[in-house]
Amino acid sequence: MSTYKLTYFNIHGRAEPIRFLLSYLNINFEDCRIEKEQWASVKPNTPFGKLPMLEVDGKVLHQTLAICRYLGKKAGLAGDNDWESVLIDIAVDNILDFWQEIIIYFYNTNEVTKAELGKRLFEVTTPFYLDKFEKIVSENGGYFVNDKLSWADIFFAAIWDYTKALVDIDIVEGRPNLSKLQKTVLNIPQIKLWTEKRPKNVRFY
Amino acid sequence: MSTYKLTYFNIHGRAEPIRFLLSYLNINFEDCRIEKEQWASVKPNTPFGKLPMLEVDGKVLHQTLAICRYLGKKAGLAGDNDWESVLIDIAVDNILDFWQEIIIYFYNTNEVTKAELGKRLFEVTTPFYLDKFEKIVSENGGYFVNDKLSWADIFFAAIWDYTKALVDIDIVEGRPNLSKLQKTVLNIPQIKLWTEKRPKNVRFY
Repeated sequence: MSTYKLTYFNIHGRAEPIRFLLSYLNINFEDCRIEKEQWASVKPNTPFGKLPMLEVDGKVLHQTLAICRYLGKKAGLAGDNDWESVLIDIAVDNILDFWQEIIIYFYNTNEVTKAELGKRLFEVTTPFYLDKFEKIVSENGGYFVNDKLSWADIFFAAIWDYTKALVDIDIVEGRPNLSKLQKTVLNIPQIKLWTEKRPKNVRFY
Repeated sequence: MSTYKLTYFNIHGRAEPIRFLLSYLNINFEDCRIEKEQWASVKPNTPFGKLPMLEVDGKVLHQTLAICRYLGKKAGLAGDNDWESVLIDIAVDNILDFWQEIIIYFYNTNEVTKAELGKRLFEVTTPFYLDKFEKIVSENGGYFVNDKLSWADIFFAAIWDYTKALVDIDIVEGRPNLSKLQKTVLNIPQIKLWTEKRPKNVRFY
């Protein structure tokens, strides 16, 4: 049996979709969480100075989406053919594009530009992306792609509470199809189990 | 036979890796190039207000990496198994991380922050990434992954002259393994043909 060790900060962040997928796969992984103070000593041991990284039998993977796609394939959630796979990849890249805008805003420390970024994020970007996602999910039987669960759906559900904590944007509120999709994912037994046993506070720094 | 229509601005930018892969596949694609003035009228017809987009038999794909991965699979350049595929995905994500820093710097218009970004880009980020890439390629028989050509190599070679034009960074200069890899890709007959017939000037705006 392979061993899995996930290393990330002690927050949801970019690792939570990976934790969701590992849980979905019933993989018993070492959930190695480092604190900010440890980062300087951990950083030189990462491939490109970034986290998360996932060690599979000691072999190091990194890059969040690459890892998620790899686990998605293992779980049979990465499409039944190349066309379905590209649609799933597109869905995830769109979610990430939206998420990047949130992260850029959150970590901006300049008073003037932060106010501008915030205005754009809350008034333009958020409704733009979430309305499109709501429409896509309504047209795809409650999922992002082709009427069935994929790792795009799990990715989306996994970033929900962290996004809420970071910038107080509820990515499913007032959008019935996204709300339903989120419930569908959170009610998958293995994922339900994970959300019950993971650290309770949604922290960030 | 399927029809392919690629829509992008009249520059290399994010579309050039797609054009390289379509050429590698000997796919006769419509290379639809719009000028800045046309963007306002084209934008509402894109899935998420962005380019490039690739229409395959009229069905719209978007997101650069998703499209490249799809074409990479078609070309047999996306790995022979899931482990090889994830290594290729990681390589491309690393290249893109580096490229994003270049784009962020290039489009920054604030005098103060641009100077800071530039200092970091030229003195820290560029040698950091390119030294790592050089080492990876030296350890993988002249390629990014497992001693053989993948779409990561084609992606890397495709952004070379645009990056040089944008910020005057030659991503292969002084790094013999990256230089050799670039030559290997540019000497593939279909890609050589493409670079000879594409518009001559490396424009940007």
